[in-house]
Amino acid sequence: MTSSEFVEANTKYSATFEKQPIRAKNPLIITCMDPRVQPYDQLGVKIGEGGIVRNAGGSAQEAINSIVVAQHFFGTTEIAVFHHTDCGMTKFTTEWLRDTVKKANPGRDDVARTVDGMDFHHITNVEESVHADVKFLVENPLVKKGSKITGWVYNVDTGKINQVADVLV
Amino acid sequence: MTSSEFVEANTKYSATFEKQPIRAKNPLIITCMDPRVQPYDQLGVKIGEGGIVRNAGGSAQEAINSIVVAQHFFGTTEIAVFHHTDCGMTKFTTEWLRDTVKKANPGRDDVARTVDGMDFHHITNVEESVHADVKFLVENPLVKKGSKITGWVYNVDTGKINQVADVLV
Repeated sequence: MTSSEFVEANTKYSATFEKQPIRAKNPLIITCMDPRVQPYDQLGVKIGEGGIVRNAGGSAQEAINSIVVAQHFFGTTEIAVFHHTDCGMTKFTTEWLRDTVKKANPGRDDVARTVDGMDFHHITNVEESVHADVKFLVENPLVKKGSKITGWVYNVDTGKINQVADVLV
Repeated sequence: MTSSEFVEANTKYSATFEKQPIRAKNPLIITCMDPRVQPYDQLGVKIGEGGIVRNAGGSAQEAINSIVVAQHFFGTTEIAVFHHTDCGMTKFTTEWLRDTVKKANPGRDDVARTVDGMDFHHITNVEESVHADVKFLVENPLVKKGSKITGWVYNVDTGKINQVADVLV
């Protein structure tokens, strides 16, 4: 797909558009950028409900800035962390990715220094990584007391979700 | 909405689930976590096509780790940056949010130090912020040469997208 196709699709979409209010500020869903992950159909989320943060892997650590915005500006009190099976982040390590970027930029000491300072939060075991992210949120003083944190695994082979954590901060 | 509603919706979804391959690694869409933003219907993106990174505002700077993963592991060569009208990130400043977090954690010098080190990338003007993010990507050596970077504004009142940048790196 190319972004030039957005315009034709959006012209059709906007022709019958009805303005949507923000109806629900919960939950904030943290999930992966993977094309097979589509929270609306898979979780029953509708436009106007909840917020969705996505990054490589669905890392809560990488999402912390957005979580702070959601909680301290919008008033979000529930955070749902989703990782998924067959995730790309299980297929390499941070060290491998750093080396790959360095090899793509030979002689660039500035790039090497930058990428050595980046943590890509690669995943060894998807269920364990959800638990680690839930623990990160539960122990993080930036997360408001009274928040509900849930952890889930989405299975890309079956379309099913499996809840693995449910904690009140 | 609460995450406990996910299970019922997902049970229906997975009952007729057909496994989806990753059909297209482009484009990588960077957009906001806002509940009114829904890239699938609004842009014609289908499950399996492209990747979607979302955070507060749709910040390309905050998305840089995921962009590096997408480009250097998955081979993504097109990045589409979307910001949107009426964005929450236009309604406060990084300094206001830092103060709010500090007030919620009185006497916690560790929290104050952490939040003072966080840049929330608040937005003054949405179209200008798209241009700034496109410039950030174009000038960033972590972004692969040969990449196509496009910049867009999504209007939450009309449902329409407006392209404001199209640059080859």
